[in-house]
Amino acid sequence: MADVVILGAGMMGSAFSFPLVDAGHAVRLVGTHLDREWIQSVRETGIHPKLKMKLPGTVAPFTHDQLGEALSPSPDLIVLGVNSAGVDWAVQQLGPLLKGPTPILMLTKGLRARENTLQILPVIVRDGLASHGVKNVPVGGVAGPCIAGELAARRDSSVVITYADAKLLDRILGLVAAPYYHARPSTDIVGVEVCAGFKNLYALAVGYPAGLLAKQGEAPDRPRAHNLAAALFAQALGEIRYVVGFLGGKLASVDGLPGTGDLYVTCQGGRNVRIGYLLGTGLRFSQARTEYGSTETIEGAQFALAVGPTMEGLFEQGRLKRQALPLAGAILDAICHDVPLQIPWTAFHREANA
Amino acid sequence: MADVVILGAGMMGSAFSFPLVDAGHAVRLVGTHLDREWIQSVRETGIHPKLKMKLPGTVAPFTHDQLGEALSPSPDLIVLGVNSAGVDWAVQQLGPLLKGPTPILMLTKGLRARENTLQILPVIVRDGLASHGVKNVPVGGVAGPCIAGELAARRDSSVVITYADAKLLDRILGLVAAPYYHARPSTDIVGVEVCAGFKNLYALAVGYPAGLLAKQGEAPDRPRAHNLAAALFAQALGEIRYVVGFLGGKLASVDGLPGTGDLYVTCQGGRNVRIGYLLGTGLRFSQARTEYGSTETIEGAQFALAVGPTMEGLFEQGRLKRQALPLAGAILDAICHDVPLQIPWTAFHREANA
Repeated sequence: MADVVILGAGMMGSAFSFPLVDAGHAVRLVGTHLDREWIQSVRETGIHPKLKMKLPGTVAPFTHDQLGEALSPSPDLIVLGVNSAGVDWAVQQLGPLLKGPTPILMLTKGLRARENTLQILPVIVRDGLASHGVKNVPVGGVAGPCIAGELAARRDSSVVITYADAKLLDRILGLVAAPYYHARPSTDIVGVEVCAGFKNLYALAVGYPAGLLAKQGEAPDRPRAHNLAAALFAQALGEIRYVVGFLGGKLASVDGLPGTGDLYVTCQGGRNVRIGYLLGTGLRFSQARTEYGSTETIEGAQFALAVGPTMEGLFEQGRLKRQALPLAGAILDAICHDVPLQIPWTAFHREANA
Repeated sequence: MADVVILGAGMMGSAFSFPLVDAGHAVRLVGTHLDREWIQSVRETGIHPKLKMKLPGTVAPFTHDQLGEALSPSPDLIVLGVNSAGVDWAVQQLGPLLKGPTPILMLTKGLRARENTLQILPVIVRDGLASHGVKNVPVGGVAGPCIAGELAARRDSSVVITYADAKLLDRILGLVAAPYYHARPSTDIVGVEVCAGFKNLYALAVGYPAGLLAKQGEAPDRPRAHNLAAALFAQALGEIRYVVGFLGGKLASVDGLPGTGDLYVTCQGGRNVRIGYLLGTGLRFSQARTEYGSTETIEGAQFALAVGPTMEGLFEQGRLKRQALPLAGAILDAICHDVPLQIPWTAFHREANA
């Protein structure tokens, strides 16, 4: 039995308590400052209002101001389940409290612009903790197709766990294994994080064709636009492959669960696909955002806004070839410059099937 | 303007008349002996009853006994649109009538067991015609995500055309280009055909998780099993990658439209997914076939029955590694030996993310 602290009590952070508890571990779930109501509800009823499920009874809920308490005694593993915008906050909270290099497992995935290039989040966290004087914290990640609600319903889910250190990786894999949680090892942290970041961006594009049909007033019993969606799906993976190569990751991650698997599951629905649909109806992003209504994070759009300017800089310098990323370029134009999303067919054809 | 004969007036053969006519060509559509009613309907009303659409007015319909008439004068291109079971019939019909090496473009895709290994259909057709004394017929194929009904509705569709000869490939590409039909070149006939054959087999597996939920009595507002479907989707592409390598094709075909794109579109619905769903509910294949009711070809199951014994022989000889194809092995067991389909999780894990 291990002691595990999960920081971040959103959908994914909370869902992750299920395999951990089922594997026999003691779990302390710490909400962020934004999760106060959810932690309150878990305390009172056991039910997570967003996940709409009762968490395992042994999960101990903490509010963010109780993080120090939750971290004492020092746990065997800290799981980071904040959203990508909350990573800096998490580092600021953990930095002063960590007493040593407790391994961190990030459910939060992706990339961020730094020093005119793209940097993966585990490195951001590791460096951030080091600047608080906590050196050599091993930071790894989980990737692959894993919708939180399905994990919490104990549905079979297959993921990849990455750490640079193979021995630690082996230990964490053993720790998280549950009958329905099939985790397999990877040491390709870079490839895995690139896939995780970009899949949200491309899910916007895969949602687009259905919107296009709606704009054309097509009845639901008429032929759909799956051919187009499938072409965009394949193009997306081809472009992710290029970025993974550019940043020094391994193509096997694109082929497997982190790339192919996670893009597939992300395209089955959700906010990114919905915004893509609205772009397909002819709306600009600013209009789609308004039409969508909710203030919830659209991960794909947030990613575009966060890394778009840096990617455009890399395009201009010729370090990243825009002609290798025509679909990403079109999506960045749509999100960052609020122009209608257009499918760049001829650009696809020049790069295709090389 | 070119003269094009399409042999096979099913969904795909008939749909292919749209881009050809829109590209300005004269199209003669020849039904097989099974398509007589459809040809009759096209003659009388222009409407294809199965496609539920009116074909372009300039398409000239012929019944199979008029094939000689349709082939005179000799066309610039013959498009083969029969189903995979009809390939031998088509060769027997064309063999005595062809006067020279008119290029053939196969919409019929896939593989067949021959001489204890797997052989791609274009080679079967080329060799079959040669045995009728018609030598050196260039036989190529179309692959990629292209549902017939969507093509006929002039929806954007992106495909790959393959010929061994780059010059001919270029000519055919120019010939089939229409504003909504985005065709790009490949010389990897083997890779493209392997993808096309195996995608139907794996679509059965991707349909399975929804059936599993139905068996468990899960209500539609409960979490789905997209995580599992996505894991199977990624595993499928990994296994297709292995078979393409085994038969000497190129991995770029798996990454692009023929593999990733076509598997994606095939998993959006249709007969293979439906049978997979029924297997997920716990039925054996024989029961699922009965439950499904229709006598229509289930391409994935037909493929399993056709190549399964040969693949099992290759497994036994150690030429094809069964441990590299655990999902294919499980599907073959389910279809060829009528045992319940089981997801071989642990086998996935041993091979994963190499």
